[in-house]
Amino acid sequence: MRLAELSERSGVSTATIKYYLREGLLASGRQINATTSEYDDEHLRRLRMVRAMIQVGRVPVATVRKVLRHVDDESLGRTMRLGAALWSLPQVPEPDADDEFVRSAQGETEQLLETLGWSNARALVTISPAYRSLVVAVAALRRLGYDWSPELLVAYARLMHQAAVLDLDFMETHPSEAEKAEIAVLGAVLVQPMLQSLHRLAQEEESGRRYGFE
Amino acid sequence: MRLAELSERSGVSTATIKYYLREGLLASGRQINATTSEYDDEHLRRLRMVRAMIQVGRVPVATVRKVLRHVDDESLGRTMRLGAALWSLPQVPEPDADDEFVRSAQGETEQLLETLGWSNARALVTISPAYRSLVVAVAALRRLGYDWSPELLVAYARLMHQAAVLDLDFMETHPSEAEKAEIAVLGAVLVQPMLQSLHRLAQEEESGRRYGFE
Repeated sequence: MRLAELSERSGVSTATIKYYLREGLLASGRQINATTSEYDDEHLRRLRMVRAMIQVGRVPVATVRKVLRHVDDESLGRTMRLGAALWSLPQVPEPDADDEFVRSAQGETEQLLETLGWSNARALVTISPAYRSLVVAVAALRRLGYDWSPELLVAYARLMHQAAVLDLDFMETHPSEAEKAEIAVLGAVLVQPMLQSLHRLAQEEESGRRYGFE
Repeated sequence: MRLAELSERSGVSTATIKYYLREGLLASGRQINATTSEYDDEHLRRLRMVRAMIQVGRVPVATVRKVLRHVDDESLGRTMRLGAALWSLPQVPEPDADDEFVRSAQGETEQLLETLGWSNARALVTISPAYRSLVVAVAALRRLGYDWSPELLVAYARLMHQAAVLDLDFMETHPSEAEKAEIAVLGAVLVQPMLQSLHRLAQEEESGRRYGFE
Protein backbone atom coordinates (compact mmCIF):
# COMPACT_ATOMS: atom_id res chain seq x y z
CA MET A 1 0.00 0.00 0.00
CA ARG A 2 1.03 3.64 -0.51
CA LEU A 3 1.55 6.22 2.24
CA ALA A 4 -2.01 7.58 1.84
CA GLU A 5 -3.55 4.15 2.40
CA LEU A 6 -1.24 3.44 5.34
CA SER A 7 -2.45 6.70 6.85
CA GLU A 8 -6.10 5.92 6.24
CA ARG A 9 -5.92 2.36 7.61
CA SER A 10 -3.99 3.38 10.72
CA GLY A 11 -5.76 6.67 11.42
CA VAL A 12 -2.31 8.32 11.69
CA SER A 13 -1.73 11.45 9.56
CA THR A 14 0.85 11.29 6.74
CA ALA A 15 2.84 14.07 8.44
CA THR A 16 3.09 11.99 11.64
CA ILE A 17 4.03 8.86 9.67
CA LYS A 18 6.84 10.83 7.98
CA TYR A 19 8.01 12.00 11.38
CA TYR A 20 8.08 8.39 12.68
CA LEU A 21 10.05 7.35 9.55
CA ARG A 22 12.62 10.13 10.11
CA GLU A 23 12.94 9.17 13.80
CA GLY A 24 13.54 5.53 12.90
CA LEU A 25 10.41 4.27 14.68
CA LEU A 26 9.11 2.78 11.44
CA ALA A 27 11.18 1.00 8.78
CA SER A 28 11.29 2.62 5.34
CA GLY A 29 8.93 1.26 2.71
CA ARG A 30 10.08 -0.42 -0.48
CA GLN A 31 11.15 2.40 -2.82
CA ILE A 32 9.16 2.26 -6.07
CA ASN A 33 10.38 5.47 -7.65
CA ALA A 34 11.88 8.79 -6.52
CA THR A 35 8.74 9.93 -4.67
CA THR A 36 6.79 6.76 -3.91
CA SER A 37 7.28 3.90 -1.45
CA GLU A 38 5.26 0.77 -0.88
CA TYR A 39 4.26 -0.35 2.67
CA ASP A 40 2.89 -3.67 3.91
CA ASP A 41 0.87 -5.07 6.83
CA GLU A 42 3.98 -5.24 8.99
CA HIS A 43 4.36 -1.45 8.66
CA LEU A 44 0.71 -1.03 9.59
CA ARG A 45 1.07 -3.20 12.70
CA ARG A 46 4.24 -1.45 13.83
CA LEU A 47 2.68 1.96 13.19
CA ARG A 48 -0.31 1.13 15.41
CA MET A 49 2.01 0.01 18.17
CA VAL A 50 4.17 3.15 17.97
CA ARG A 51 1.10 5.36 17.98
CA ALA A 52 -0.35 3.54 21.01
CA MET A 53 2.87 3.86 22.99
CA ILE A 54 3.24 7.56 22.21
CA GLN A 55 -0.37 8.73 22.30
CA VAL A 56 -1.99 6.40 24.81
CA GLY A 57 1.02 5.36 26.90
CA ARG A 58 2.74 8.80 26.72
CA VAL A 59 6.04 7.01 26.19
CA PRO A 60 8.83 9.38 24.96
CA VAL A 61 10.09 8.89 21.37
CA ALA A 62 13.63 7.97 22.51
CA THR A 63 12.16 5.28 24.79
CA VAL A 64 9.99 3.89 21.99
CA ARG A 65 13.14 3.54 19.88
CA LYS A 66 14.83 1.61 22.71
CA VAL A 67 11.82 -0.68 23.23
CA LEU A 68 11.63 -1.46 19.49
CA ARG A 69 15.32 -2.33 19.37
CA HIS A 70 14.65 -5.08 21.91
CA VAL A 71 11.41 -6.19 20.25
CA ASP A 72 13.38 -6.72 17.02
CA ASP A 73 16.45 -8.31 18.59
CA GLU A 74 16.44 -11.89 17.29
CA SER A 75 19.54 -12.79 19.29
CA LEU A 76 17.51 -12.86 22.53
CA GLY A 77 15.46 -15.79 23.88
CA ARG A 78 11.78 -15.07 24.39
CA THR A 79 11.80 -14.30 28.13
CA MET A 80 14.69 -11.87 27.81
CA ARG A 81 13.31 -10.35 24.64
CA LEU A 82 9.99 -9.62 26.36
CA GLY A 83 11.78 -8.54 29.52
CA ALA A 84 14.20 -6.20 27.77
CA ALA A 85 11.39 -4.57 25.80
CA LEU A 86 9.20 -4.09 28.89
CA TRP A 87 12.08 -2.92 31.05
CA SER A 88 12.88 -0.09 28.64
CA LEU A 89 9.47 1.43 29.40
CA PRO A 90 9.55 4.29 31.96
CA GLN A 91 10.07 2.80 35.44
CA VAL A 92 10.01 3.96 39.04
CA PRO A 93 13.33 5.30 40.37
CA GLU A 94 15.55 3.14 42.60
CA PRO A 95 14.08 3.10 46.15
CA ASP A 96 16.09 4.73 48.95
CA ALA A 97 17.88 1.80 50.66
CA ASP A 98 18.51 3.91 53.80
CA ASP A 99 14.78 4.32 54.41
CA GLU A 100 13.53 1.94 57.12
CA PHE A 101 10.19 1.36 55.32
CA VAL A 102 12.00 0.48 52.09
CA ARG A 103 14.28 -1.99 53.87
CA SER A 104 11.38 -3.68 55.60
CA ALA A 105 9.39 -3.71 52.32
CA GLN A 106 12.34 -5.47 50.67
CA GLY A 107 12.25 -8.15 53.35
CA GLU A 108 8.50 -8.48 53.03
CA THR A 109 8.66 -8.74 49.22
CA GLU A 110 11.41 -11.37 49.27
CA GLN A 111 9.40 -13.37 51.78
CA LEU A 112 6.36 -13.05 49.52
CA LEU A 113 8.23 -14.47 46.51
CA GLU A 114 9.45 -17.36 48.62
CA THR A 115 5.96 -18.13 49.94
CA LEU A 116 4.61 -18.02 46.39
CA GLY A 117 7.40 -20.23 45.07
CA TRP A 118 8.15 -17.71 42.33
CA SER A 119 11.72 -18.86 41.77
CA ASN A 120 12.01 -17.24 38.34
CA ALA A 121 10.95 -13.86 39.66
CA ARG A 122 13.37 -14.32 42.57
CA ALA A 123 16.21 -14.91 40.10
CA LEU A 124 15.49 -11.49 38.59
CA VAL A 125 15.18 -9.34 41.74
CA THR A 126 18.43 -7.46 41.19
CA ILE A 127 17.49 -6.36 37.68
CA SER A 128 13.68 -6.37 37.50
CA PRO A 129 11.95 -2.95 37.58
CA ALA A 130 8.71 -4.78 38.51
CA TYR A 131 10.32 -6.00 41.72
CA ARG A 132 11.66 -2.53 42.45
CA SER A 133 8.28 -0.87 41.92
CA LEU A 134 6.61 -3.49 44.13
CA VAL A 135 9.03 -2.63 46.94
CA VAL A 136 8.27 1.08 46.46
CA ALA A 137 4.50 0.45 46.52
CA VAL A 138 4.63 -1.77 49.63
CA ALA A 139 6.86 0.77 51.43
CA ALA A 140 4.41 3.58 50.58
CA LEU A 141 1.46 1.62 51.99
CA ARG A 142 3.35 0.61 55.14
CA ARG A 143 4.52 4.19 55.71
CA LEU A 144 0.84 5.24 55.67
CA GLY A 145 0.08 2.76 58.41
CA TYR A 146 -1.64 0.26 56.11
CA ASP A 147 -1.57 -2.73 58.40
CA TRP A 148 -2.34 -5.82 56.38
CA SER A 149 -1.34 -9.42 56.85
CA PRO A 150 1.21 -11.11 54.54
CA GLU A 151 -1.64 -13.46 53.51
CA LEU A 152 -3.46 -10.58 51.81
CA LEU A 153 -0.45 -9.80 49.62
CA VAL A 154 -0.16 -13.51 48.75
CA ALA A 155 -3.83 -13.59 47.75
CA TYR A 156 -3.46 -10.53 45.48
CA ALA A 157 -0.30 -12.03 43.94
CA ARG A 158 -2.07 -15.31 43.11
CA LEU A 159 -4.81 -13.37 41.31
CA MET A 160 -2.23 -11.42 39.34
CA HIS A 161 -0.51 -14.67 38.42
CA GLN A 162 -3.78 -15.94 36.97
CA ALA A 163 -3.99 -12.69 34.98
CA ALA A 164 -0.42 -13.27 33.71
CA VAL A 165 -1.40 -16.76 32.54
CA LEU A 166 -4.27 -15.21 30.53
CA ASP A 167 -1.84 -12.57 29.14
CA LEU A 168 0.68 -15.13 27.92
CA ASP A 169 -1.97 -17.51 26.58
CA PHE A 170 -3.29 -14.60 24.50
CA MET A 171 0.22 -13.61 23.44
CA GLU A 172 0.93 -17.13 22.23
CA THR A 173 -1.95 -16.95 19.75
CA HIS A 174 0.21 -14.48 17.76
CA PRO A 175 2.47 -16.16 15.21
CA SER A 176 5.84 -14.37 15.04
CA GLU A 177 8.28 -13.60 17.87
CA ALA A 178 8.21 -9.89 16.96
CA GLU A 179 4.40 -9.84 17.18
CA LYS A 180 4.55 -11.63 20.54
CA ALA A 181 6.97 -9.00 21.88
CA GLU A 182 4.78 -6.20 20.49
CA ILE A 183 1.67 -7.62 22.17
CA ALA A 184 3.54 -7.90 25.48
CA VAL A 185 4.56 -4.23 25.32
CA LEU A 186 1.11 -3.08 24.25
CA GLY A 187 -0.38 -5.15 27.05
CA ALA A 188 1.83 -3.39 29.59
CA VAL A 189 0.77 0.01 28.24
CA LEU A 190 -2.89 -0.65 27.43
CA VAL A 191 -4.26 -3.72 29.21
CA GLN A 192 -3.33 -2.22 32.58
CA PRO A 193 -5.85 0.67 32.30
CA MET A 194 -8.49 -1.88 31.30
CA LEU A 195 -7.77 -4.07 34.33
CA GLN A 196 -7.85 -1.02 36.57
CA SER A 197 -11.27 -0.04 35.19
CA LEU A 198 -12.56 -3.59 35.65
CA HIS A 199 -11.23 -3.54 39.20
CA ARG A 200 -13.07 -0.32 40.09
CA LEU A 201 -16.22 -1.54 38.43
CA ALA A 202 -15.96 -4.78 40.40
CA GLN A 203 -15.60 -2.76 43.60
CA GLU A 204 -18.81 -0.90 42.78
CA GLU A 205 -20.58 -4.16 42.03
CA GLU A 206 -19.38 -5.81 45.23
CA SER A 207 -20.13 -2.71 47.29
CA GLY A 208 -23.68 -2.62 45.92
CA ARG A 209 -24.12 -6.33 46.76
CA ARG A 210 -22.91 -5.90 50.32
CA TYR A 211 -24.29 -2.50 51.31
CA GLY A 212 -27.03 -1.73 48.79
CA PHE A 213 -27.45 1.75 47.35
CA GLU A 214 -29.49 3.69 49.87
CA MET B 1 -0.21 15.75 70.70
CA ARG B 2 1.26 19.08 69.64
CA LEU B 3 2.06 20.18 66.08
CA ALA B 4 5.72 19.10 66.42
CA GLU B 5 4.75 15.56 67.41
CA LEU B 6 2.10 15.37 64.67
CA SER B 7 4.84 16.33 62.22
CA GLU B 8 7.28 13.78 63.58
CA ARG B 9 4.79 10.91 63.65
CA SER B 10 3.47 11.63 60.15
CA GLY B 11 6.78 12.55 58.51
CA VAL B 12 5.07 15.71 57.15
CA SER B 13 6.82 19.05 57.83
CA THR B 14 5.09 21.57 60.15
CA ALA B 15 5.04 24.09 57.26
CA THR B 16 3.13 21.60 55.09
CA ILE B 17 0.74 20.75 57.93
CA LYS B 18 -0.01 24.46 58.38
CA TYR B 19 -0.66 24.71 54.64
CA TYR B 20 -3.10 21.76 54.78
CA LEU B 21 -4.85 23.43 57.78
CA ARG B 22 -5.21 26.71 55.86
CA GLU B 23 -6.55 24.86 52.80
CA GLY B 24 -9.13 23.04 54.91
CA LEU B 25 -7.71 19.57 54.18
CA LEU B 26 -7.17 18.97 57.90
CA ALA B 27 -9.53 19.99 60.74
CA SER B 28 -8.14 22.50 63.25
CA GLY B 29 -6.76 21.08 66.50
CA ARG B 30 -8.29 21.80 69.90
CA GLN B 31 -7.07 25.31 70.82
CA ILE B 32 -5.16 25.22 74.15
CA ASN B 33 -3.91 28.79 74.20
CA ALA B 34 -3.20 31.59 71.70
CA THR B 35 -0.32 29.77 70.02
CA THR B 36 -0.86 26.08 70.80
CA SER B 37 -3.32 23.47 69.55
CA GLU B 38 -3.74 19.84 70.47
CA TYR B 39 -4.11 17.12 67.79
CA ASP B 40 -5.26 13.50 68.10
CA ASP B 41 -4.94 10.19 66.21
CA GLU B 42 -7.74 11.15 63.87
CA HIS B 43 -5.69 14.15 62.70
CA LEU B 44 -2.71 11.87 62.19
CA ARG B 45 -4.75 9.41 60.13
CA ARG B 46 -6.28 12.12 57.97
CA LEU B 47 -2.90 13.79 57.50
CA ARG B 48 -1.36 10.56 56.19
CA MET B 49 -4.24 10.15 53.78
CA VAL B 50 -3.98 13.73 52.47
CA ARG B 51 -0.23 13.40 52.05
CA ALA B 52 -0.62 10.10 50.17
CA MET B 53 -3.22 11.54 47.80
CA ILE B 54 -1.12 14.63 47.06
CA GLN B 55 2.41 13.21 47.03
CA VAL B 56 1.89 9.65 45.83
CA GLY B 57 -1.37 9.98 43.90
CA ARG B 58 -0.57 13.49 42.52
CA VAL B 59 -4.19 14.46 43.21
CA PRO B 60 -4.73 18.28 43.06
CA VAL B 61 -5.55 20.06 46.36
CA ALA B 62 -9.01 21.15 45.19
CA THR B 63 -9.82 17.53 44.31
CA VAL B 64 -8.60 16.29 47.70
CA ARG B 65 -10.99 18.77 49.34
CA LYS B 66 -13.87 17.39 47.24
CA VAL B 67 -12.99 13.77 48.03
CA LEU B 68 -12.83 14.51 51.77
CA ARG B 69 -16.21 16.22 51.71
CA HIS B 70 -17.72 12.93 50.51
CA VAL B 71 -15.64 10.81 52.89
CA ASP B 72 -17.07 12.86 55.78
CA ASP B 73 -20.66 13.03 54.52
CA GLU B 74 -22.66 11.04 57.05
CA SER B 75 -25.90 11.55 55.14
CA LEU B 76 -24.79 9.01 52.49
CA GLY B 77 -25.16 5.24 52.65
CA ARG B 78 -21.90 3.29 52.43
CA THR B 79 -21.94 2.41 48.71
CA MET B 80 -22.70 5.98 47.69
CA ARG B 81 -20.24 7.41 50.19
CA LEU B 82 -17.44 5.24 48.80
CA GLY B 83 -18.61 5.87 45.26
CA ALA B 84 -18.84 9.64 45.63
CA ALA B 85 -15.39 9.81 47.22
CA LEU B 86 -13.80 7.64 44.52
CA TRP B 87 -15.62 9.40 41.72
CA SER B 88 -14.19 12.77 42.73
CA LEU B 89 -10.70 11.46 41.91
CA PRO B 90 -9.36 12.52 38.49
CA GLN B 91 -11.15 10.51 35.80
CA VAL B 92 -10.89 9.93 32.07
CA PRO B 93 -12.85 12.37 29.87
CA GLU B 94 -16.20 11.38 28.35
CA PRO B 95 -15.57 9.10 25.32
CA ASP B 96 -16.54 10.39 21.87
CA ALA B 97 -19.94 8.78 21.18
CA ASP B 98 -19.58 9.45 17.43
CA ASP B 99 -16.51 7.23 17.22
CA GLU B 100 -17.34 3.78 15.82
CA PHE B 101 -14.85 2.04 18.15
CA VAL B 102 -16.38 3.76 21.18
CA ARG B 103 -19.88 2.73 20.19
CA SER B 104 -18.88 -0.85 19.64
CA ALA B 105 -16.90 -0.85 22.93
CA GLN B 106 -20.06 0.34 24.69
CA GLY B 107 -21.98 -2.57 23.29
CA GLU B 108 -19.20 -4.98 24.22
CA THR B 109 -18.98 -3.62 27.76
CA GLU B 110 -22.73 -3.80 28.36
CA GLN B 111 -22.71 -7.37 27.08
CA LEU B 112 -19.84 -8.13 29.45
CA LEU B 113 -21.76 -6.84 32.49
CA GLU B 114 -24.77 -8.90 31.48
CA THR B 115 -22.69 -12.06 31.06
CA LEU B 116 -21.08 -11.47 34.45
CA GLY B 117 -24.43 -10.80 36.11
CA TRP B 118 -23.08 -7.55 37.56
CA SER B 119 -26.52 -5.97 38.01
CA ASN B 120 -25.27 -3.36 40.49
CA ALA B 121 -22.57 -2.15 38.15
CA ARG B 122 -25.14 -2.09 35.33
CA ALA B 123 -27.38 0.16 37.43
CA LEU B 124 -24.53 2.69 37.60
CA VAL B 125 -23.41 2.79 33.95
CA THR B 126 -24.74 6.29 33.28
CA ILE B 127 -22.84 7.81 36.21
CA SER B 128 -19.84 5.55 36.89
CA PRO B 129 -16.41 6.83 35.75
CA ALA B 130 -15.13 3.24 36.05
CA TYR B 131 -17.58 2.15 33.37
CA ARG B 132 -16.61 5.10 31.19
CA SER B 133 -12.88 4.38 31.50
CA LEU B 134 -13.48 0.72 30.70
CA VAL B 135 -15.24 1.72 27.47
CA VAL B 136 -12.32 4.01 26.61
CA ALA B 137 -9.76 1.25 27.31
CA VAL B 138 -11.65 -1.38 25.30
CA ALA B 139 -12.09 1.06 22.38
CA ALA B 140 -8.33 1.86 22.42
CA LEU B 141 -7.41 -1.84 22.28
CA ARG B 142 -9.92 -2.59 19.53
CA ARG B 143 -8.73 0.39 17.48
CA LEU B 144 -5.22 -1.09 17.63
CA GLY B 145 -6.50 -4.31 16.17
CA TYR B 146 -6.38 -6.25 19.47
CA ASP B 147 -8.56 -9.15 18.49
CA TRP B 148 -9.55 -11.00 21.63
CA SER B 149 -12.60 -13.07 22.42
CA PRO B 150 -15.31 -11.84 24.82
CA GLU B 151 -14.38 -14.81 27.05
CA LEU B 152 -10.97 -13.27 27.77
CA LEU B 153 -12.56 -10.05 29.05
CA VAL B 154 -14.92 -12.13 31.22
CA ALA B 155 -11.96 -14.04 32.66
CA TYR B 156 -10.09 -10.83 33.53
CA ALA B 157 -13.25 -9.36 35.07
CA ARG B 158 -13.75 -12.40 37.32
CA LEU B 159 -10.19 -12.04 38.61
CA MET B 160 -10.75 -8.35 39.31
CA HIS B 161 -13.94 -9.23 41.15
CA GLN B 162 -11.96 -11.55 43.41
CA ALA B 163 -9.55 -8.66 44.03
CA ALA B 164 -12.52 -6.42 44.91
CA VAL B 165 -13.72 -9.00 47.44
CA LEU B 166 -10.26 -8.91 49.08
CA ASP B 167 -10.36 -5.06 49.04
CA LEU B 168 -13.73 -4.84 50.77
CA ASP B 169 -12.93 -7.60 53.26
CA PHE B 170 -9.84 -5.61 54.24
CA MET B 171 -11.82 -2.36 54.35
CA GLU B 172 -14.37 -3.93 56.69
CA THR B 173 -11.68 -4.61 59.28
CA HIS B 174 -11.59 -0.82 59.87
CA PRO B 175 -14.05 0.36 62.53
CA SER B 176 -15.57 3.72 61.54
CA GLU B 177 -17.40 4.65 58.33
CA ALA B 178 -14.96 7.54 57.75
CA GLU B 179 -11.99 5.17 58.06
CA LYS B 180 -13.64 2.75 55.64
CA ALA B 181 -14.11 5.53 53.08
CA GLU B 182 -10.50 6.67 53.61
CA ILE B 183 -9.18 3.15 53.03
CA ALA B 184 -11.24 2.84 49.85
CA VAL B 185 -9.78 6.08 48.47
CA LEU B 186 -6.23 5.19 49.49
CA GLY B 187 -6.73 1.77 47.93
CA ALA B 188 -7.71 3.37 44.62
CA VAL B 189 -4.63 5.61 44.73
CA LEU B 190 -2.05 3.23 46.22
CA VAL B 191 -3.11 -0.41 45.93
CA GLN B 192 -3.38 -0.07 42.16
CA PRO B 193 0.39 0.52 41.65
CA MET B 194 1.05 -2.48 43.91
CA LEU B 195 -1.27 -4.72 41.87
CA GLN B 196 0.34 -3.50 38.67
CA SER B 197 3.81 -4.37 40.01
CA LEU B 198 2.59 -7.80 41.13
CA HIS B 199 1.10 -8.32 37.68
CA ARG B 200 4.37 -7.53 35.89
CA LEU B 201 6.33 -9.67 38.30
CA ALA B 202 3.87 -12.51 37.71
CA GLN B 203 4.37 -12.10 33.95
CA GLU B 204 8.14 -12.45 34.43
CA GLU B 205 7.63 -15.53 36.60
CA GLU B 206 5.26 -17.16 34.13
CA SER B 207 7.46 -16.23 31.17
CA GLY B 208 10.47 -17.81 32.89
CA ARG B 209 8.43 -20.96 33.59
CA ARG B 210 7.26 -21.28 30.00
CA TYR B 211 10.26 -20.14 27.99
CA GLY B 212 13.26 -20.33 30.34
CA PHE B 213 15.90 -17.64 30.40
CA GLU B 214 18.32 -18.49 27.61
